[in-house]
Amino acid sequence: METDEIIVHSSSHDYPIIIGEGIRYEVQSFLKKDYTSILIVTDEQVGKLYLRDVLSGLSTENVFHSIIPSGEKTKSIEYFYQLQTEAIRYGLDRESLMIALGGGVIGDLTGFVASTFMRGIDFVQIPTTILAHDSSVGGKVAINHQMGKNLIGSFYPPKSVIYDVETLRTLNQKEIRSGYAELIKEALISDEFTFRSFLKTNLLALSSEELQEHLRIGIQIKARIVESDEKESGIRKFLNLGHTLGHAIEAELGYGSLAHGEAVAIGLLFSLHVSEDLFSSNLPYQALFQWLQQNNYPLNFQYEDMQSIITKMKKDKKNVKNMIQMILLEEIGKPIVKEVTDQQVEHYLKSFVGKLVAK
Amino acid sequence: METDEIIVHSSSHDYPIIIGEGIRYEVQSFLKKDYTSILIVTDEQVGKLYLRDVLSGLSTENVFHSIIPSGEKTKSIEYFYQLQTEAIRYGLDRESLMIALGGGVIGDLTGFVASTFMRGIDFVQIPTTILAHDSSVGGKVAINHQMGKNLIGSFYPPKSVIYDVETLRTLNQKEIRSGYAELIKEALISDEFTFRSFLKTNLLALSSEELQEHLRIGIQIKARIVESDEKESGIRKFLNLGHTLGHAIEAELGYGSLAHGEAVAIGLLFSLHVSEDLFSSNLPYQALFQWLQQNNYPLNFQYEDMQSIITKMKKDKKNVKNMIQMILLEEIGKPIVKEVTDQQVEHYLKSFVGKLVAK
Repeated sequence: METDEIIVHSSSHDYPIIIGEGIRYEVQSFLKKDYTSILIVTDEQVGKLYLRDVLSGLSTENVFHSIIPSGEKTKSIEYFYQLQTEAIRYGLDRESLMIALGGGVIGDLTGFVASTFMRGIDFVQIPTTILAHDSSVGGKVAINHQMGKNLIGSFYPPKSVIYDVETLRTLNQKEIRSGYAELIKEALISDEFTFRSFLKTNLLALSSEELQEHLRIGIQIKARIVESDEKESGIRKFLNLGHTLGHAIEAELGYGSLAHGEAVAIGLLFSLHVSEDLFSSNLPYQALFQWLQQNNYPLNFQYEDMQSIITKMKKDKKNVKNMIQMILLEEIGKPIVKEVTDQQVEHYLKSFVGKLVAK
Repeated sequence: METDEIIVHSSSHDYPIIIGEGIRYEVQSFLKKDYTSILIVTDEQVGKLYLRDVLSGLSTENVFHSIIPSGEKTKSIEYFYQLQTEAIRYGLDRESLMIALGGGVIGDLTGFVASTFMRGIDFVQIPTTILAHDSSVGGKVAINHQMGKNLIGSFYPPKSVIYDVETLRTLNQKEIRSGYAELIKEALISDEFTFRSFLKTNLLALSSEELQEHLRIGIQIKARIVESDEKESGIRKFLNLGHTLGHAIEAELGYGSLAHGEAVAIGLLFSLHVSEDLFSSNLPYQALFQWLQQNNYPLNFQYEDMQSIITKMKKDKKNVKNMIQMILLEEIGKPIVKEVTDQQVEHYLKSFVGKLVAK
């Protein structure tokens, strides 16, 4: 299997996303300069599996690592400050590098620390989940505020992304589902052919070749979008398809009870539900619903407190003047942003839940 | 007296620095777009004097303010997070504006909050000290880490700087001294003529015209430097003249016992002391020493613990590979960066203190 390389153009610099098997052992060969020191940030779970492999391939003299607990709770102001402290203690300077070894949480947190440590030092991502393909393209880094996800952050692209698909073999089914929801989202935004071909995937029998191919396509779709709208003033908002409700569900149920992508999958279905009503009955609500069911996505979304979900949807950063901005599809490959009222959202949520329960 | 306008070019955008009398009443007229809401951040001391004036000139519908205690201690992770919380509570969105009304501390803190709130919203500075002319040009924003000053921050230029020299009339002599040290530094980096003309100033009898003129010149010098080296990889380091020792003295004595510029003034003298020895006996150590004395700068710098000061000098962000990088002058207007060993620094510190005590 060959190594793929996709170049992403950002306003500050271009950077490669390298996808291949076993490349976690060769990180040094992908670094573009000599760093005075390197700090690898990883979590307990990933660290146990892959830290040694990455360390074995680094010849820089001063290599340190910080291992933090696994899970979304480390995307906090406390861990942000703790990593700053460790970076200072290890003597990192402006010519040092931070490496994020792990999933989206590690990438977002480490990237935000790197973007602000001494006003910004280089960082490199080594994603170890499918989901992280999404967050590793586009330069968004952040931590959560207790009042909302990703509310404190920067736009700060990595110097490179080193994506070793071998590390994805240790993912469980929940993590695979979570990652594929974002791939499906990218396909829905892009074109019918890609969407239909992704729906042929059986997640229980996923091959490395298939996965690498889908990652390459998903990353390319995302890269082309963020390149033309780095700061999310226009079309980059389309990548939020499924996320307004997705984020609200995650917050409502408590982060972690559903994987991020599992919540997004419900959000994608909801977007198609609303889009079908507003634009066209030819949208693939039914096809997506069936695929999600076949691949064991949890779709038993019940609302205890509708008003609380709507309030959470209104906390989205994309909202302006307190109106919910939903991403919808006129057809596959034709996303649009639409402001909807609280009443409309409530109406659609009710009919959506009714439809899910009826199945 | 006329209003001056200096345009600063940054990699992300150009912005004007407007200097004039009474312009704090007309802030709305300097805003380039309609914001959904505005959050003014100020401290207790400045808020009492000027918040009402600024509010009176703002016609945007949603204007909020956060008043925090005065002093360097608010450049902390705690106040950073508190302001994020207030911004969320007030419902600020990506089309909102933050205004920093105050000195360097307020500017640095508010700018860093704005640079990271929802990954960055617009901010405008209304400096109310002479010292803040320095921090309001160049886009450096930051908070302190308990282990060092400005260790957590970004490069994030404001959308404009509105400099009302009327607000400088309420400054006390210590604040005036502090601000003039940075003006003298800019003159030393720039040229002999500017330096000599600044030394004609009697800080006890400073006119508004003289002050506005000196601010304009200082800002222009700084702007030209940061424009050609925004990210501090080269000549921007020259602006650090006097600061390696200055920062160490501040940290050693505890922030606040000397004003920032008072510590920098000692650092400037030290740079000239070292430069005279290394390059030329024609450097203006003596002229600067006399002017500082005449204008009541505290020069009774004693070291209790030389090793502790050297350790603190080594914490400077500009250092690479643990060597102290000092900014020195070959002649006025010809700054250079020089790596010095701990032994050299100790030797020069001893002879410097000896010279100060002897006077």
